[in-house]
Amino acid sequence: MRRLTILGSTGSIGVNALRIVESHPERFRIEALAAWTNMEKLAEQIEKFRPRVVSVANAALAKELRSMIKRRVKVLHGAEGAITCAMHDSSDMVLSAMVGAAGLAPTLAAIKSGKILALANKETLVTAGEIVMREAKTARVKIIPVDSEHSALFQALRGERINTVRRVILTASCGPFINTPIEAMRSVTLEQALRHPNWSMGRKITIDSATLMNKGLEVIEARWLFNLPAEKIEVVVHPQSVIHSMVEFNDTSIIAQMGLPDMRAPIAFALGYPDRQETELPSLDIAAVGKLTFQPPDLKRFPSLALAYHALRMGGSATAVLNAANEVAVQAYIDKRIGFTAIPQVCEKVLTMADNGKAATMAEALAIDRSGRTYAREVVEQISRTSPYPTRSLQ
Amino acid sequence: MRRLTILGSTGSIGVNALRIVESHPERFRIEALAAWTNMEKLAEQIEKFRPRVVSVANAALAKELRSMIKRRVKVLHGAEGAITCAMHDSSDMVLSAMVGAAGLAPTLAAIKSGKILALANKETLVTAGEIVMREAKTARVKIIPVDSEHSALFQALRGERINTVRRVILTASCGPFINTPIEAMRSVTLEQALRHPNWSMGRKITIDSATLMNKGLEVIEARWLFNLPAEKIEVVVHPQSVIHSMVEFNDTSIIAQMGLPDMRAPIAFALGYPDRQETELPSLDIAAVGKLTFQPPDLKRFPSLALAYHALRMGGSATAVLNAANEVAVQAYIDKRIGFTAIPQVCEKVLTMADNGKAATMAEALAIDRSGRTYAREVVEQISRTSPYPTRSLQ
Repeated sequence: MRRLTILGSTGSIGVNALRIVESHPERFRIEALAAWTNMEKLAEQIEKFRPRVVSVANAALAKELRSMIKRRVKVLHGAEGAITCAMHDSSDMVLSAMVGAAGLAPTLAAIKSGKILALANKETLVTAGEIVMREAKTARVKIIPVDSEHSALFQALRGERINTVRRVILTASCGPFINTPIEAMRSVTLEQALRHPNWSMGRKITIDSATLMNKGLEVIEARWLFNLPAEKIEVVVHPQSVIHSMVEFNDTSIIAQMGLPDMRAPIAFALGYPDRQETELPSLDIAAVGKLTFQPPDLKRFPSLALAYHALRMGGSATAVLNAANEVAVQAYIDKRIGFTAIPQVCEKVLTMADNGKAATMAEALAIDRSGRTYAREVVEQISRTSPYPTRSLQ
Repeated sequence: MRRLTILGSTGSIGVNALRIVESHPERFRIEALAAWTNMEKLAEQIEKFRPRVVSVANAALAKELRSMIKRRVKVLHGAEGAITCAMHDSSDMVLSAMVGAAGLAPTLAAIKSGKILALANKETLVTAGEIVMREAKTARVKIIPVDSEHSALFQALRGERINTVRRVILTASCGPFINTPIEAMRSVTLEQALRHPNWSMGRKITIDSATLMNKGLEVIEARWLFNLPAEKIEVVVHPQSVIHSMVEFNDTSIIAQMGLPDMRAPIAFALGYPDRQETELPSLDIAAVGKLTFQPPDLKRFPSLALAYHALRMGGSATAVLNAANEVAVQAYIDKRIGFTAIPQVCEKVLTMADNGKAATMAEALAIDRSGRTYAREVVEQISRTSPYPTRSLQ
């Protein structure tokens, strides 16, 4: 019986994880759930999964939640509440699936208290990869990635030695704008950008998929997760999202992990690790798919990917700054304040302004993240004038 | 330092294995070489690799070989000679790469004497799979497959548990006749059949690739090697031969092994097992390949594949009989005595005549093999009249 804490239980990853828990009641027990503002969904989850403790964004929401539920459960709030859930004694695994920098501190707390970590929060490694991996090593904590690409690499590496890896190849579906001409990129609408052809995900990550920043952040994550230099991490565009990623070994053998694009597969793998478990997902019928295609990424149309490599090579806290800038820029795009091509413009500008110091502690990493956001908001102001959200689409 | 015996050193697999040995002198030492009739090549190999003992087909060839070499080496001959090489005390691994039923007894001898077995001889498992796997279990011998497809499955299964396998999917390039209409199949010439688009291999296996019997024999091998029932072993046509095979697990995750089609990769993997070793082979550039395609196999045009599944379901010694019939039929085609489509006709006819008893010993398995050949020669005589080698090609 695996005892779970889910950080971010009302988000896309959290909800899918709970579907898996629900279909394997003999294997999983929910100990703690941390959500942020979706009280209705959290109340439902409390009735169904009976956690010992939950946490929400603030005291007002905690009060609201208490009035919604009949069941007796400890309701905490704020960053402290999420951290308490992450460290909860009765859990042996924490699924870290909160979105954004808010996930950092609870994730580190989970590691420090020796929980197996199923990691879906990208910011943890992008903002504080070195610190997090060092702490995981010290605490002898296994980190199981939940992202489909890193799960693919992790699975491809089972039974292999990391020093025999020649390179890893992350596949990128390239999102809805794979064939959009460069001159039309400027005026793509939010509705177009949110229409991802293969994956059903949250808004932020869907926009990141459309800019390829998502792939860039994955490159950075892979750097830390597998301790590989940037030059051993490649990206190939693969629109069908059937091959989720690949590892080439020093004997030229490539191990790829494949399947239908459904987040429940990598989530189930992480939750059950090291055992694979039956799922009700359909099998991939490769003869029915018929064709898998591959092409190099176009860095002119998708400069965000190049920026991620650039930040990785800059070292220090550049990737943290990049991530902070990107979050602010994507939010500004979602708020229809800047255009689609302004997102990488904001990132690039903030990156050139970045102080390249290295964060030694999580507090320093979070301070760098905050100052990146402050810069980014200023840059958004400037750029919103030169590259505003389009009044009409060219597509 | 791995000490090697190579059975079939002058064949395609043997020669490629020795190229790998040559490029890693610090890792491998050749203890024994068994060849059959190619004295010139064996003499060269003796000078270069200095084995302690070699073996050839018969006493006359042994005498001829002795006159060709300066170096002092023990020269044995016949089945006994090959068996002595296979059991040689100083070796810790045997590469079994003799073609045909002649490889059976020395392979079993290698297993019984506890050597790690790198297995390239298909007939071992097709003719006596149950016996061989039982002996390997008793002797606690690890069998590492050399066939690219089974090596792919073996690599995909590293770090995994066989009871979590939902199915394995062998890929088939489908050879030169993938698009040949059924009415033209009858008159394809030997020269056309020997022109394999991707792999450079010996004549027998190249013809088997063109009929898909090679894939059928691989299905049978996979049944024994991985202890899987026929219904968990599938075949998909994949003309580019880039994905060498795949395993689907019970969580719908598929692990595939990929690479450029070059036999040196799986040979190097087997020789170095469990360690991967640097090779000078080029990396696969998947963006340059651009497209991988898949389709279901056409059992009407390639009835040999259906025959293999049929023999596997018949059980007992049916697969041994099928293999014997196929060897005779392919030789008759190479000798231009029967047509291309007569190959599966011979196999089917012999299979219906087969006594379905189970061989309990290697001697019984070899006796079944011999009687299968005798039947097959009679059937070839009959069928050569109704389906002779074409006087002119329709292609």
